[in-house]
Amino acid sequence: MLALLDEAPDTVAVETEELHAADLADIAETLERVDVARLLKVLPPARAADVMEYLEEELRTELLEEMTPREAAALVTEMNPDDRADALEELEDESIDEILSEIPAAARHETEQLLAYDTDSAGGLMTTEFVSVPEDMTVEDALAAVRRIARGGRREAMYTVYATDTEGRVQGVMSLRELLAAPEGAKVSDVAWGEVVSVLPDADRETVAQLTRNYDLVAIPVVDESMRILGVVTVDDVIDALVEEHTEDSQKFGGMEALDEPYMQISVLGMIRKRAPWLGVLFVGEMLTASAMQHFQLELQKAIVLTLFIPLIMSSGGNSGSQATSLIIRAMALGEVRLRDWWRVAMRELPSGIILGAILGAIGFTRIIVWQRTGLFDYGPHYFLLAITIAAALTGIVTFGSLAGSMLPFLLKRIGFDPASASAPFVATLVDVTGLSIYFTVALLILRGTLL
Amino acid sequence: MLALLDEAPDTVAVETEELHAADLADIAETLERVDVARLLKVLPPARAADVMEYLEEELRTELLEEMTPREAAALVTEMNPDDRADALEELEDESIDEILSEIPAAARHETEQLLAYDTDSAGGLMTTEFVSVPEDMTVEDALAAVRRIARGGRREAMYTVYATDTEGRVQGVMSLRELLAAPEGAKVSDVAWGEVVSVLPDADRETVAQLTRNYDLVAIPVVDESMRILGVVTVDDVIDALVEEHTEDSQKFGGMEALDEPYMQISVLGMIRKRAPWLGVLFVGEMLTASAMQHFQLELQKAIVLTLFIPLIMSSGGNSGSQATSLIIRAMALGEVRLRDWWRVAMRELPSGIILGAILGAIGFTRIIVWQRTGLFDYGPHYFLLAITIAAALTGIVTFGSLAGSMLPFLLKRIGFDPASASAPFVATLVDVTGLSIYFTVALLILRGTLL
Repeated sequence: MLALLDEAPDTVAVETEELHAADLADIAETLERVDVARLLKVLPPARAADVMEYLEEELRTELLEEMTPREAAALVTEMNPDDRADALEELEDESIDEILSEIPAAARHETEQLLAYDTDSAGGLMTTEFVSVPEDMTVEDALAAVRRIARGGRREAMYTVYATDTEGRVQGVMSLRELLAAPEGAKVSDVAWGEVVSVLPDADRETVAQLTRNYDLVAIPVVDESMRILGVVTVDDVIDALVEEHTEDSQKFGGMEALDEPYMQISVLGMIRKRAPWLGVLFVGEMLTASAMQHFQLELQKAIVLTLFIPLIMSSGGNSGSQATSLIIRAMALGEVRLRDWWRVAMRELPSGIILGAILGAIGFTRIIVWQRTGLFDYGPHYFLLAITIAAALTGIVTFGSLAGSMLPFLLKRIGFDPASASAPFVATLVDVTGLSIYFTVALLILRGTLL
Repeated sequence: MLALLDEAPDTVAVETEELHAADLADIAETLERVDVARLLKVLPPARAADVMEYLEEELRTELLEEMTPREAAALVTEMNPDDRADALEELEDESIDEILSEIPAAARHETEQLLAYDTDSAGGLMTTEFVSVPEDMTVEDALAAVRRIARGGRREAMYTVYATDTEGRVQGVMSLRELLAAPEGAKVSDVAWGEVVSVLPDADRETVAQLTRNYDLVAIPVVDESMRILGVVTVDDVIDALVEEHTEDSQKFGGMEALDEPYMQISVLGMIRKRAPWLGVLFVGEMLTASAMQHFQLELQKAIVLTLFIPLIMSSGGNSGSQATSLIIRAMALGEVRLRDWWRVAMRELPSGIILGAILGAIGFTRIIVWQRTGLFDYGPHYFLLAITIAAALTGIVTFGSLAGSMLPFLLKRIGFDPASASAPFVATLVDVTGLSIYFTVALLILRGTLL
C-alpha cells in the first residue's frame, strides 16, 4: 500500500476498488498517520468517507483534527448522518463549529440535531436517512420511489419502508421484501403493518437493543410524541451498542470504571486512572476487616487456630456473592428480572445459599476431622467443636453472601445507580467485613467455655 | 384472550391479525399450557408457526412434546428452517425422528442437515432460505426472481442476493438496495461485489458475530470448501448469539457454569447444581490458605498483629486480579487481544500492578502510622517496620494479582479452554494462596530479629 501511495497515487483508488471499506480501513490502521491522511486524499470523497466510518475512533479523531475545517467538512459531508455526528462528537466544540460552518446547510442542520442527543440514546444512535412514503401511494409508486432513493446513493436504513399519513405521522411499516411481494395496484396502507414498534429519541440504547431483539428487527424508527418519524436506528448500530454495553458491564463487574477505549490502545497511565479509584475505595472498605479483627484480638490470642480459617471462610462468602450478583446483573440487563421481583429473588437465594453453604460446611467439617484423625495437623483437644464452628460459620456466610450479592443490584437500581456497578470485588468486600463478624460470633457461641 | 378462546374461537385469528407474532407469543406465555395449545390450533398454520418461533424455548418444547407427531410436523413445517431445527433439537431423539417422518421430504432432508451442525456454529445458526441468482442474469430478471420468491412467502434472508456461477459457487453479493438501484439492462455480475465475506459451517458463533459487526452485515453466507453456498446466518440470529454468548461469559466470570435458562425459570435445585461444583472446587483450592497458614503457625503465634491484615492484603490481590482478568477476557472476546499478544499485555500489567500496589501500599502505610500516633490502636513497638511490611507486601501482591489475572486467560486459551472460565473467584483463589506466601515471606525478611 505504501509503495503504491509513493509511486502511483492515482491508481490507489482503482486498485483498492473491490476491497470492502472495512478491510481498507484495517490496512490504513497499520500505516503511519500521515500516510493514512495521504490515502484518504487519493480516494474519491464518498469512498474516503466510507473508510473513515470503519476507522478506529481515536485515529479518526486525530485525522479530523489535523485537517483544515474545509477538508474535514468535505469528508464528513459524505458520511452517513449518524456516523458524521459520531465522528464530530469526539472533537473540541470549537472545531465542530468550524467544520459545521463549511457543511451544506441541510446537512449541517441535521447534524446539529443529532449532536444534541445523548450518545447512548436512540436519538444518538439513529440516522436521519430513511425511506417513508405516503400511505395512500400505490405499491408500484412506492417501489419506484424507493428505487429513486436507492439510485440517489443513500446507503443505510433501506430495508424497511415507513408509511406516513398527511401529517407525517407513522401509520405503518413494511419490509422491502413485503413491498416487493405486494400485489400490483395495492395501496401502501393495504400492505403495511399497522403496529409499528418505535422508540422516543431519549430511550436508552438498552431499550433499543431489547426491542430490536424481541421483534427481530433490522431497523427501529425513532419518533416524536406525535409519532412523526425523526430517524431510524439500524441493526448494525444496535449490535455495536450491545457490544459496548456488555464491555462496560463486564469491566464494571471486574471492579473498575469502563475503559471507553480498546485495552491495547489506552495508555498504562490512563488505565491506572480507571482502575485505581475503585481499588482504593475497596481497599478502604476492606480496612474494616482489620478493625473487626482488632476488635476480636483477645479471642484471636486465645484461639489462634481460628485465624487459620479466616481466608477460607471469607473467600467462600465472596465467591457465593459473586455468583449471585453476576446472575442478577445479567438477568436485569436481559429484562428477565425487574425491580419488583426482588422478593422473589430473595426467596430463591435464601434456600440456594443455605444449601450451598451446607455443602461447603460439610467439606470443611470433614477436612478438619480427617486432618486431625490422620495426624496431618493438630487442631487441639476441642477440634470437634472447632469443626462444628467452621461448618456453621460457612453455612451462615454463604447464605449471607448469596443474599447480599443478589440484593445489591436491586438496591443500586432502586437508588438510581447502574446495577452493573455491583462488581465482584465490591460484593466480596461487603461480605468479607460482615463475614468476619459472623465467624467470630459463631465461634463465641460454640466455643465459649472451651477455647474462648 | 381466554374469553375469546372460550366464546368465539373462530374469531381469534382475525382479532389478533394485526398483532406482531412476538406480542402474541408474549400473551400466550401468560396463559396455561393447555390454553396455549388451543390458541395455536385456532390460528392459521403459518401464523401459529410464527408465534412458536417467539415462544420461550421450554414452553415450545413442552407444547411440541404434547402434540401428536402429525400435529407437530404440520406446525414445524411452516417454520423457518433454522427455527425448525432449533425447535426440534430440544426434543428426544425418538420424537424428532417421529416428527421428521411426517414432514415433506425436501424439508425433512434440509432439517436433518441443519440438525447435524453444532448449535453454536455457523451451520447451527444458518437458515437454508436465501436468494441466489446466476451471475449472468440481468438485474431485471434477478429482481423478478426475487419478487417471485418474496411472493412465495419466504420470510428470511431476503435482504442480500448472492450471485453464483454455473457450478453454484458464490461469486458476488449485493444488497437488495443495490439490486433496486442497478441501471436497467446491467448484469448481476456487473453490480455484485466480488469480495464476499463468508464463513465455513463449523465457524463458531463468536466468529460469525465478529464478522457481522466488522462489516455491518445483515446476513452472512455459510459456504462449503468450494464456496458453494449452504445457507445464510441472518442478523437477528447473530444478535441472539451475541446476547447468549455475553450471558454465558458473565455467568462464568461470576464463578459458575452457564445457566442455559433464564434466572427466574431454572429451578432452585437446578441452579444449585450449576453453582455448587465451582464453589466446591474453589473451596478446596482455598483450603490451601489454611495449609499455608498452618505452615506459618509459629510466626503467627509470635506476631499475632500480622493476622489483622490478612484479609486486607489478600482481598487487594484478588481485586486487582479481577480487574486484569475482566479486561483481558473482554478484549479477547472482542478480538482486540490475541494469544500472541501475551507478552505485550504482561509488559502493560507489570507497571500497572506496581503503581496500583504502591498506591494501596501508601494508603495502608499511612493508616498504620496514623492509627498508632493518634492512639486508635497499638500495633506494638515495631509499628514502623510493620507498616513497611504491609506496604511492601501490598505492592508485591497487587503486582502479582495483576500479572496472574491477566495471564490466566492466555494460559486457558493456550491449553484449549474458554478464556472466560478465568472467573473472578478463580483468580481470587489463586491470588489468595500465593498472596499469603508473599505476605509471610516479606514479613520474615523485614521483621526477622524484631517481631519474628
